[in-house]
Amino acid sequence: PRACGTGWHPGGTAVCAVLFLGALPSPAATSQGHVSVILLGATGDLARKYLWQGLFQLYLDHASGGHSFTFHGAALTAPERGQRLMFDVLKKLSCPPDEPPDRCAVLKDQFLRLSQYHQLNTAENYTALNTEIEMLLRQEGLKEAGRIFYFSVPPFAYTDIARHINSSCRPPPGAWLRVVLEKPFGHDLESARELAAELAGFFREEEMYRVDHYLGKQAIAHILPFRDQNRQFLDPIWNRHHVERVEIVLKETVDAKGRTSFYEQYGVIRDVLQNHLTEALLFLTMELPGNVSSAGEVLQRKLQGFQSLRGLGKGSAVLGQYAAYGGQVREELQRAQGYVSTTPTFAGVLIHSDSLRWEGVPFLLTSGKALDERVGYVRVLFKNRAYCPQSGTLRDAGSSQCKAKQIIFYIGHGALNTPAVLVSRNLFKPVMPASSWKEAAFQPELHVFGQPLSDYYVYSPMRERDAYSVLISSIYHGRKDFFITTENLLASWEFWTPLLDSISHQSPRLYPGGVENQHLLDFEMVGGELAFALAEPIELLQPKAPTPSDYKTIQAKYRQSPLVSAWAEELVSQLASDMERAASSAVARAGHFHLALSGGSSPVVLFQQLARHHYAFPWRYTHIWLVDERCVPLADPESNFFSLHDHLLQSVRVPYFNIHPMPVHLNQRLCVEEDRGTELYAKEIAALVANASFDLVLLGMGADGHTASLFPHSENGLEGAQTVVLTESPVKPHQRMSLSLPLINRARKVFVLVLGKGKHNITSLISRVGHEPRKWPISGVSPSSGRLVWYVDYEALLG
Amino acid sequence: PRACGTGWHPGGTAVCAVLFLGALPSPAATSQGHVSVILLGATGDLARKYLWQGLFQLYLDHASGGHSFTFHGAALTAPERGQRLMFDVLKKLSCPPDEPPDRCAVLKDQFLRLSQYHQLNTAENYTALNTEIEMLLRQEGLKEAGRIFYFSVPPFAYTDIARHINSSCRPPPGAWLRVVLEKPFGHDLESARELAAELAGFFREEEMYRVDHYLGKQAIAHILPFRDQNRQFLDPIWNRHHVERVEIVLKETVDAKGRTSFYEQYGVIRDVLQNHLTEALLFLTMELPGNVSSAGEVLQRKLQGFQSLRGLGKGSAVLGQYAAYGGQVREELQRAQGYVSTTPTFAGVLIHSDSLRWEGVPFLLTSGKALDERVGYVRVLFKNRAYCPQSGTLRDAGSSQCKAKQIIFYIGHGALNTPAVLVSRNLFKPVMPASSWKEAAFQPELHVFGQPLSDYYVYSPMRERDAYSVLISSIYHGRKDFFITTENLLASWEFWTPLLDSISHQSPRLYPGGVENQHLLDFEMVGGELAFALAEPIELLQPKAPTPSDYKTIQAKYRQSPLVSAWAEELVSQLASDMERAASSAVARAGHFHLALSGGSSPVVLFQQLARHHYAFPWRYTHIWLVDERCVPLADPESNFFSLHDHLLQSVRVPYFNIHPMPVHLNQRLCVEEDRGTELYAKEIAALVANASFDLVLLGMGADGHTASLFPHSENGLEGAQTVVLTESPVKPHQRMSLSLPLINRARKVFVLVLGKGKHNITSLISRVGHEPRKWPISGVSPSSGRLVWYVDYEALLG
Repeated sequence: PRACGTGWHPGGTAVCAVLFLGALPSPAATSQGHVSVILLGATGDLARKYLWQGLFQLYLDHASGGHSFTFHGAALTAPERGQRLMFDVLKKLSCPPDEPPDRCAVLKDQFLRLSQYHQLNTAENYTALNTEIEMLLRQEGLKEAGRIFYFSVPPFAYTDIARHINSSCRPPPGAWLRVVLEKPFGHDLESARELAAELAGFFREEEMYRVDHYLGKQAIAHILPFRDQNRQFLDPIWNRHHVERVEIVLKETVDAKGRTSFYEQYGVIRDVLQNHLTEALLFLTMELPGNVSSAGEVLQRKLQGFQSLRGLGKGSAVLGQYAAYGGQVREELQRAQGYVSTTPTFAGVLIHSDSLRWEGVPFLLTSGKALDERVGYVRVLFKNRAYCPQSGTLRDAGSSQCKAKQIIFYIGHGALNTPAVLVSRNLFKPVMPASSWKEAAFQPELHVFGQPLSDYYVYSPMRERDAYSVLISSIYHGRKDFFITTENLLASWEFWTPLLDSISHQSPRLYPGGVENQHLLDFEMVGGELAFALAEPIELLQPKAPTPSDYKTIQAKYRQSPLVSAWAEELVSQLASDMERAASSAVARAGHFHLALSGGSSPVVLFQQLARHHYAFPWRYTHIWLVDERCVPLADPESNFFSLHDHLLQSVRVPYFNIHPMPVHLNQRLCVEEDRGTELYAKEIAALVANASFDLVLLGMGADGHTASLFPHSENGLEGAQTVVLTESPVKPHQRMSLSLPLINRARKVFVLVLGKGKHNITSLISRVGHEPRKWPISGVSPSSGRLVWYVDYEALLG
Repeated sequence: PRACGTGWHPGGTAVCAVLFLGALPSPAATSQGHVSVILLGATGDLARKYLWQGLFQLYLDHASGGHSFTFHGAALTAPERGQRLMFDVLKKLSCPPDEPPDRCAVLKDQFLRLSQYHQLNTAENYTALNTEIEMLLRQEGLKEAGRIFYFSVPPFAYTDIARHINSSCRPPPGAWLRVVLEKPFGHDLESARELAAELAGFFREEEMYRVDHYLGKQAIAHILPFRDQNRQFLDPIWNRHHVERVEIVLKETVDAKGRTSFYEQYGVIRDVLQNHLTEALLFLTMELPGNVSSAGEVLQRKLQGFQSLRGLGKGSAVLGQYAAYGGQVREELQRAQGYVSTTPTFAGVLIHSDSLRWEGVPFLLTSGKALDERVGYVRVLFKNRAYCPQSGTLRDAGSSQCKAKQIIFYIGHGALNTPAVLVSRNLFKPVMPASSWKEAAFQPELHVFGQPLSDYYVYSPMRERDAYSVLISSIYHGRKDFFITTENLLASWEFWTPLLDSISHQSPRLYPGGVENQHLLDFEMVGGELAFALAEPIELLQPKAPTPSDYKTIQAKYRQSPLVSAWAEELVSQLASDMERAASSAVARAGHFHLALSGGSSPVVLFQQLARHHYAFPWRYTHIWLVDERCVPLADPESNFFSLHDHLLQSVRVPYFNIHPMPVHLNQRLCVEEDRGTELYAKEIAALVANASFDLVLLGMGADGHTASLFPHSENGLEGAQTVVLTESPVKPHQRMSLSLPLINRARKVFVLVLGKGKHNITSLISRVGHEPRKWPISGVSPSSGRLVWYVDYEALLG
């Protein structure tokens, strides 16, 4: 055969490969078959920086055994120019430091000879590539083991390439196909679903390897093995009783300059949180499978982990944008001077898992550009349950139980500048695989996370490996647990999309960038939500709307009764205080407090307010009654009682005996007249509530003027002797049970809560009409000897 | 009148007083009446160190207005010697630093002339004292305002003195009597009750001022005013959502040498925790009254605070004894060489309040002798709810939200060596009364509680006042909220006595004393209890008596089924763990856990165990059913459900929908056949429990061999198709509802719990009989395909 060069004759190259392999310890004859790697986007940024180096590493690791290889760089560029660009990259490949230089030179030379460039543009190009591979294999008498197509191309190119591969480049039966996809995998749940459906038309699920390169970061990749190998230590403490909080953080110093065309569409949540940080979160929160090396089991547990995450709302995140971003966008994307971007470049998100293991533990995910330092870590902080009587200054430096207890998976950069695993010495000495992690020697005075390094067991990898070389090796070995399956991807988007939607028009806080940020981005958890710790600085992105506390609560009259009005938040807090006062005085007077509550959405905020802020509320002596109920089982989320239970009862201590749900579900059926649920409830009221006069009835008002479940022109409940009635609602579920107007009007106090713009019209109307309960049941509320107070927020009152 | 000397003619002294007062700005003529202070034990230790100085201070503060005074020192010592001893003390009195020296000299001279010594031994002595006071007042034409009797005498002398005062020394109508009592006020609940009853025979409640001198410590006395004046800041954070833990600490360096005759009877809990630290605890935990200067309101709220404290058990405390203590006791009390004292000189106690405000917040009370430093403080540590993206080293020193947040009432000594109030700057700038507290200047680098002083707002008193001078002034002003009322005292003993009883034979851990203690006394919270963090060192105080845990739980067979046996406490904890395991596996398998529980007394300890120690129990997915019920209303304390609710349900979070009490109370009547409660319950079971097979049924066994409410020769429930039945009990209340034997035998697991000597005979009998459910219903328990386990304690098994 002719001499081997960097020539383009595929057969020749392969022959060279075979010859060279033959010169190495393990002869080509032992090859278990041939693997072709096709790198699409071979001259792009990612390929240039990481992928070729990863492929070279793959070759270094496996050249001496297993399969034989060829490497095919591909791009749209015409052959000559493409080839030159590609070989410029290949020439710069470097060997790992532990490789002897002469062997390195030989291997690098071999790698170059096994690599070739292809222009892949038209269908014919793909067919030609396929033919070349087949021919090569035939000529060399090699059996084909598989093909790896690595898509290092923009997502818009995916479909075309996928179609071509599927139609022209599939390996013959018995050999595998692996296509490797780089993010972004869509922009939200819908687009991710579309893209997934499209790809599913070309590839089977097991053929697709979606890369999240964080899964290749050594510290992240070691979370599950660490949890597995340290079960004996972690089993008792890896739960809400011991973990105080978890921080998952990726801070960057660079900004988005030069990349705003991408960034402006995605922002920090899609760029970092939805993928990288979420994967780390799942590794921490998922239940460990029996066998952590089974990709199937791992993926299944991970999906279950997604199911336990509590949904995110607008209040779950704080958002920031570095000050220069707007200008960069306007310049790079040629936007007008007035253009304002609301794309966040910084986000802190509070996540809760509702699993028994993690309920109540805050998981804080944070990432941002233009911050003070580059660092990534996952930090599990344990609760301090110790008291040390000896004063700190007189204590040994030893592993006191009073020092912080933490486990940190240090991704890299920052003070340590290497991946690492840190475990506080007062926790336990972790089991680490001796072949890949070693106890690391740092300066012991170096402080990380508030403690000197000497307080930790510190491990770093025996050999630091780039994420892409880890991942390329995993692709080669078919380890799908290092990649994002379609289900996994959609579960993540399903989790993130509601938040992304809710914040899409929210203005992020501007921050100067770098160390200048100081405390500007500090945030706090307040009542299950996040808020910046410092008040908004004066330079605002946009002028702020007046806030509730800028106004005073209005005290006036409405329908001849006292009216309390304020912005919703303040109004609800006033109402809750008034209720507590009513409760305390009733308990002081009579020993108990009979409270009848309405369903609907407005009371939910009130319930939360009562549950969270009214510690002195005499719940133990309070009886809870329902004003109305939908005819659904009590545990149905549609039920008023369910909402009351969820938002209030489960957080306060009302004795079981004092809770009186409406009996809408008797004899396994709903609101059947002959089951006499109304009679039952009326009797219960008569038996417990003196004179059937509730201490307090809380009502709402519907846009049609209904109150309780008494709708306009109702046949029941507007008058007459019956105190509890069945009624019909114009909206589903139609059947309702309700207290009657005459019963409501016997109460000592009636408070009506009206919230929101949607109630403005009816609020105006009702202010003018007289006593016309058939038309507007709310107008019939008029306690015979009790006190009526209206709580109407500014939006309902003023529109 | 003759010249004033230190003569003993009372009239003469009083005349001098009047003369001298006349020389001061505010003449005696303005006197609002005369106050006589009688200090019993005038030459004792306390009087010498604090009380005379306190009385002098009272005189300094009030000599120029209000009442006129005379001071009567009294003791058993004969007049001449007593007088000499007393004046030796009085001569050493010092003026406060801000008093001009010349005025001081004049006032001190006056004070000496107003003071006299009396021997008070016999009844006649008391009568004479009374006559002297009356005569003096008559001679000087003074109206009597009141008399203060300060008991600085050992408690055994109280009754006699009290009797004498009551019979001979009461002031005339219109003038008040105040008797001041010093601790100890009993040794436990019973002795405190006796002493209180005795005193009540002589004095009215409002006449008694029981001193806890901690209430006079400036930092402690300021807790309530601080909470009141800072309501705006504290209202949102003074609760379980924000407070992480509270430490109430009094550390001493001295030991008990020279005082062992007292100490050996009392120990650290009675000496410090039951009184001083408990009072501080209540000031923190009680709900603030509307008016904190109303003593009545404060005392009422404090008593309510006691009601909320969760009972203490053996596991609530860790105990220590300094190594030299035993020798000191043997020497001072002349005990034999082998004598071993178990009196604790160190204690850490974990206290929980079950109020809505504090539920779950640990309050750690710690005190000890022979520790590393002398210091006292109350420290409220808040949860860290912030995340600060900026790395610590690049952050301003400012008030970062990420620094610890705490409020400290610093009692004195220690690093600050003054009373102080510290509030973290990232919390709020407190409102402090400018007349009595000032912002204090310390070295800002000084570290307290893990932070430099510059991180706090620090306030110290304008004028440092000794506790006794604060208290004597409060007695004078009749401020009863600075003292311990009888109710308050008994509430405290009621709280502490069960712990004191349960630890009375427990060996404390030995500690060397001083800085040598190092980590030996560090303790941790584990599952709601306390334990030392380090394993017991080798030198044990005494060869330990065998404790339950030294025995192994016996695992054997009983009636062909597995038998678990142990001492009751351990058995119950084993059973609770087995139940948790059953629950978790049922939830993992089926998503829910159907648990049927029996009534009776044995399960109560089990319920408490489950409520307090089994945090991982999947309550949210557990359905609670009743095995049997008495035909009484559910809220009747006789009801099985009531007991279950009281001891378990109100402490765990079982959804309302999952709780299934037996319907014994329908249509306002109890267990009437035609109301078909049994049918209703059977239907509910059929609707929710697959195959009507409970996951776990917990049974007991009666001394007559009954189980559930199935009694010997019952007509119902022993066989047949009916799953829920009405039965008759031989004891009241006779009517019962019960699951039937056939239904019980369908369960997957049946656990039978048998506790106590009273069950020994039936346990022996049942071990020998066959399947005879008509005679002994328990013998019919035999799950058709489930597993039966007997949990029988040693007392029931072995008699």
